[in-house]
Amino acid sequence: MSTGKINVAVENIFPLIKKFLYSDHEIFLRELVSNATDATIKLKHLTSIGEAKVDYGNPIIEVKVDKEAKKLHIIDQGIGMTEAEVQKYINDIAFSGAEEFLDKYKDTAKDSGIIGHFGLGFYSAFMVASKVEIITKSYKDEPAVHWVCDGSPEFELTTAEKTKRGTEIILHIAEDSTEFLEEGRIRELLTKYNKFMPVPIKFGTKEEELPLPEDAAEDAEPETKTVDNIINNPNPAWTKQPTDLEDKDYKEFYRELYPMQFEEPLFHIHLNVDYPFNLTGILYFPRLGKDMNIQRDKIQLYQNQVFVTDNVEGIVPEFLTMLRGVIDSPDIPLNVSRSYLQADGAVKKISSYITRKVADKLKSLFNEDRADFEKKWDDIKVVIEYGMLSEEKFFDKAEAFALYPTVDGTYYTYPELEEKIKENQTDKDGKLIVLYASDKDAQHSYIASAKDKGYEVLLLNSPIVSHLLQKLETSKDKVSFVRVDGDDINNLIKKDEEHISKLSDEEKENLKKLLDETIADKAYTVKLEALDSTTAPFTITQPEFMRRMKEMQATGGGGGMFGMGNMPDMYNLVVNTNSELVGEILNTKTKKKQERLITQSLDLARLSQGLLKGEALTNFVKRSYEMIK
Amino acid sequence: MSTGKINVAVENIFPLIKKFLYSDHEIFLRELVSNATDATIKLKHLTSIGEAKVDYGNPIIEVKVDKEAKKLHIIDQGIGMTEAEVQKYINDIAFSGAEEFLDKYKDTAKDSGIIGHFGLGFYSAFMVASKVEIITKSYKDEPAVHWVCDGSPEFELTTAEKTKRGTEIILHIAEDSTEFLEEGRIRELLTKYNKFMPVPIKFGTKEEELPLPEDAAEDAEPETKTVDNIINNPNPAWTKQPTDLEDKDYKEFYRELYPMQFEEPLFHIHLNVDYPFNLTGILYFPRLGKDMNIQRDKIQLYQNQVFVTDNVEGIVPEFLTMLRGVIDSPDIPLNVSRSYLQADGAVKKISSYITRKVADKLKSLFNEDRADFEKKWDDIKVVIEYGMLSEEKFFDKAEAFALYPTVDGTYYTYPELEEKIKENQTDKDGKLIVLYASDKDAQHSYIASAKDKGYEVLLLNSPIVSHLLQKLETSKDKVSFVRVDGDDINNLIKKDEEHISKLSDEEKENLKKLLDETIADKAYTVKLEALDSTTAPFTITQPEFMRRMKEMQATGGGGGMFGMGNMPDMYNLVVNTNSELVGEILNTKTKKKQERLITQSLDLARLSQGLLKGEALTNFVKRSYEMIK
Repeated sequence: MSTGKINVAVENIFPLIKKFLYSDHEIFLRELVSNATDATIKLKHLTSIGEAKVDYGNPIIEVKVDKEAKKLHIIDQGIGMTEAEVQKYINDIAFSGAEEFLDKYKDTAKDSGIIGHFGLGFYSAFMVASKVEIITKSYKDEPAVHWVCDGSPEFELTTAEKTKRGTEIILHIAEDSTEFLEEGRIRELLTKYNKFMPVPIKFGTKEEELPLPEDAAEDAEPETKTVDNIINNPNPAWTKQPTDLEDKDYKEFYRELYPMQFEEPLFHIHLNVDYPFNLTGILYFPRLGKDMNIQRDKIQLYQNQVFVTDNVEGIVPEFLTMLRGVIDSPDIPLNVSRSYLQADGAVKKISSYITRKVADKLKSLFNEDRADFEKKWDDIKVVIEYGMLSEEKFFDKAEAFALYPTVDGTYYTYPELEEKIKENQTDKDGKLIVLYASDKDAQHSYIASAKDKGYEVLLLNSPIVSHLLQKLETSKDKVSFVRVDGDDINNLIKKDEEHISKLSDEEKENLKKLLDETIADKAYTVKLEALDSTTAPFTITQPEFMRRMKEMQATGGGGGMFGMGNMPDMYNLVVNTNSELVGEILNTKTKKKQERLITQSLDLARLSQGLLKGEALTNFVKRSYEMIK
Repeated sequence: MSTGKINVAVENIFPLIKKFLYSDHEIFLRELVSNATDATIKLKHLTSIGEAKVDYGNPIIEVKVDKEAKKLHIIDQGIGMTEAEVQKYINDIAFSGAEEFLDKYKDTAKDSGIIGHFGLGFYSAFMVASKVEIITKSYKDEPAVHWVCDGSPEFELTTAEKTKRGTEIILHIAEDSTEFLEEGRIRELLTKYNKFMPVPIKFGTKEEELPLPEDAAEDAEPETKTVDNIINNPNPAWTKQPTDLEDKDYKEFYRELYPMQFEEPLFHIHLNVDYPFNLTGILYFPRLGKDMNIQRDKIQLYQNQVFVTDNVEGIVPEFLTMLRGVIDSPDIPLNVSRSYLQADGAVKKISSYITRKVADKLKSLFNEDRADFEKKWDDIKVVIEYGMLSEEKFFDKAEAFALYPTVDGTYYTYPELEEKIKENQTDKDGKLIVLYASDKDAQHSYIASAKDKGYEVLLLNSPIVSHLLQKLETSKDKVSFVRVDGDDINNLIKKDEEHISKLSDEEKENLKKLLDETIADKAYTVKLEALDSTTAPFTITQPEFMRRMKEMQATGGGGGMFGMGNMPDMYNLVVNTNSELVGEILNTKTKKKQERLITQSLDLARLSQGLLKGEALTNFVKRSYEMIK
């Protein structure tokens, strides 16, 4: 047996870095700016505990493009490095400086926001540069050093002239990476990754108008001065205490996050927890409307103010991925598969913390200003309803704020609704019947009939409403939801009362025969009913059960019966034997006139149910023009 | 000045690999199976050129899970390694064995499909394993060796008992990666990444029924034997020559690619090019229907039969990402940003090659069996129309096969359509007017009027049709597309003929006054027209220009005028002064009856344009029941 030590062939370390360190080369800039930030925050910490006896001042980080010389500079005013530190931190790859620093100062450094995650990041420079220089001067009283490496493992180290504290990294951009010499591209990257990093970042300059002197001529051009262009906000709202922020601050931060978004968010939820995990953030409810297929990658994930990703799948519960905003947590493992992430204990806790916070916020918004909450309901309901369907705990909490609006614009919670309708809408078997419509226009005549009886009709039009009703019916006792066009209103809520038919049994038989002969369309099942004489002569209804199953299948998820989606629609044609017109049909002498009356009445019933289209509609219109002449 | 060599601290190489090698740990299995395949194919090559004097046989790769012992085995029967080779290829990290092999045998190895891209992959084992063993025996007459490493850089090397040629890798799965001891998870990964790799992969066994003996009793149970379960197809269709494949082979391969997809594809396009780049693949046209928001990550990208990604954005032209299938090319750079990819010369060539092949295939399908092509048109048109809009070259080629169907189901190419209608549908200014409908049902009465004149009406209902019409109008000469409900048909195609009005100027003035008084809705602009007496009394039309601009804005893209999307719909109410009913309205004595006739006529016109809804419809139905009594 022999033993040995694995030998890393240093000649090949740079191709390795280039190929594997990150699949996206643009990451190099995030890494280098993170290092610069790190070096600055470290100095702040050391001065604050008295270990570094220098003036911290107001340090910034500067990024400069020198297109002509094909160079990119990243300059900080941080801790700097001595020659020994360059040897240790730069020349020995895979030695994480941040970790050692954290070990040494762990008690005091914990809360100072040191970015310790990207210790290896410096080498990502070689993904885009053919040569890298470091010019650095430590805060300690030692000479500055100049390190140069052209991507082979050989480096050169000399002393440098630099007198100002800090580190300058110079990348000689490689031929295949010239995109990173474009000012627009660098600005794009800084905006994407470094927009909220905790040290001001200067990129380029901008012109600013000076105030005109008081005695200036009216047409005087204002003079301008060139000022530093700071491209980041080092103190984003989520890092502050909620008590220090007003509503307008949250709205302003929303505009900062989504500059292309003109609409204001409806409200925000400030997340802030440090045990058992560390997480801050702000979530916004945007106006959502009915569309569930909205873009879901709008929540940005940060770690200590460094942008990581906008894919929060697995971290935020799925129904909340429709929201927008920022989450910042160092406790989310990143280099793991999504399936591992979902099984991770810490991540599960984060997910259920967020769910709870959202439910609590909704409840307090509802309690504090119910009128305002009702106004926003239509824009937030898909999130809430989806959450009620997918998270049992959220379902329970939502009882307190989930709203059920009527077609007339009254909003009830479920307990209020039950209280309101239980007297009038409990049927003869003791079951509470909740009536709803999905479309005020399309179901107008059915809604009108229900309202004539003094019933409340809810307006439920979310795409997942049939799933939600199914869930409500199983979790509540003796409750049925029926759409208002599911049957004649007297059959939807059956009471112990009977209408006497004006027609004799023989007349009914004749009528049935006549209708069956005249109505060729097999989609309609004729049902004779003795209804109020004022009720429409013909009404087309579609039974609740079948319709709902089909809807559930169309919107996915369980509950629908297999294959039902492809079945044709089936309708009942309810004929009111007590209506004047039906009496007239029976008494009309010529068969042709009878048929004409039936056809016209059926067409009118189809119109009310939205079923008269195409050639049938054209024929109806022609026939109607003739009939009014 | 001093110089030095960057030192890689080997102690930290394993954390580095674990953290950075791949962001998705599951990749380790792809890498190890790729290496095993590589070793097998190398042996095949060496035997074929006579360099290895052994029997190649029918080697397979075996993957075994030993859940109890927490081990995962990957066993191949390939080239194997001698002790010296283990030292060289395993103990020296970042030394790409495949590259050296390719260098040495470059002339003969080029076409034998050696996977040279994952030379570093072996170390990905340490992302999921706390200890890794290699037991390997070279095809050369040398003793087998056994290598063990527990993730520290120290390894142990001994001789082993193994007598069969090949390599066995044993992973001792780490505590945080036990998911990779689940048979279901491993099967999932093998199916995802290795489904089409060129060496058979055995994973587990399955029972297979033996044929019953001829004299078996009727109720005899068939005996079973256990056979190897080969989970991949080493010779997928795209690696074969088109001439060796029949239509059923392509369909079978489609089912292999998408086992959950029950519908068959409409047709396929076999891609096969080796200069100036290497690319094979098969693209399928699925049934698409009208929805453009379909899932677009259905094309799988392979490199030498190893799955890489299902995101082909930037490689395949956008309009073709709606297709399905496989692309296999070693010439696509992978570890670059998408923006770099799109600027890459080779990738641009690949993209335009694919576009050309698709256009050629469509043309030949059209020429070979036009009836069949017409039958498929509705399911493929969104791709073709989107391609015509987004790729100029495709637009030119599509002239030969893009179809314009009429409402009666006749399909014209543009040149055929022009020829067919130019006589009858050229207006008095010499402009060719192409009539179209977007919905046969909703625009039925307008279509009927146009057909009465002998005009052809196209049925164009793709979501992007307004953009396409805009493009056609600018690229063709003196052509206008107008929707059939844009105006009265006599005004849509103006001829040199005049209808004489039955009404005197005074009567017209009275009528206009009466109409303006009665019709409160300001959305309707009343226009009196002397039309055929058989034309409907009232017709509602919506001018083409405004409607199209609004549609274009709704579906995105340029062309729409800013802010137009929010303007209310405007309609014309065309009143036919020569119709009987209009005469009757004028001659009716009581104002109340006049108003009733006008209201009913307006409602009928609104019905034909789909504008009568909600309360207005309910009122209309009630009024109509009364009017027929």
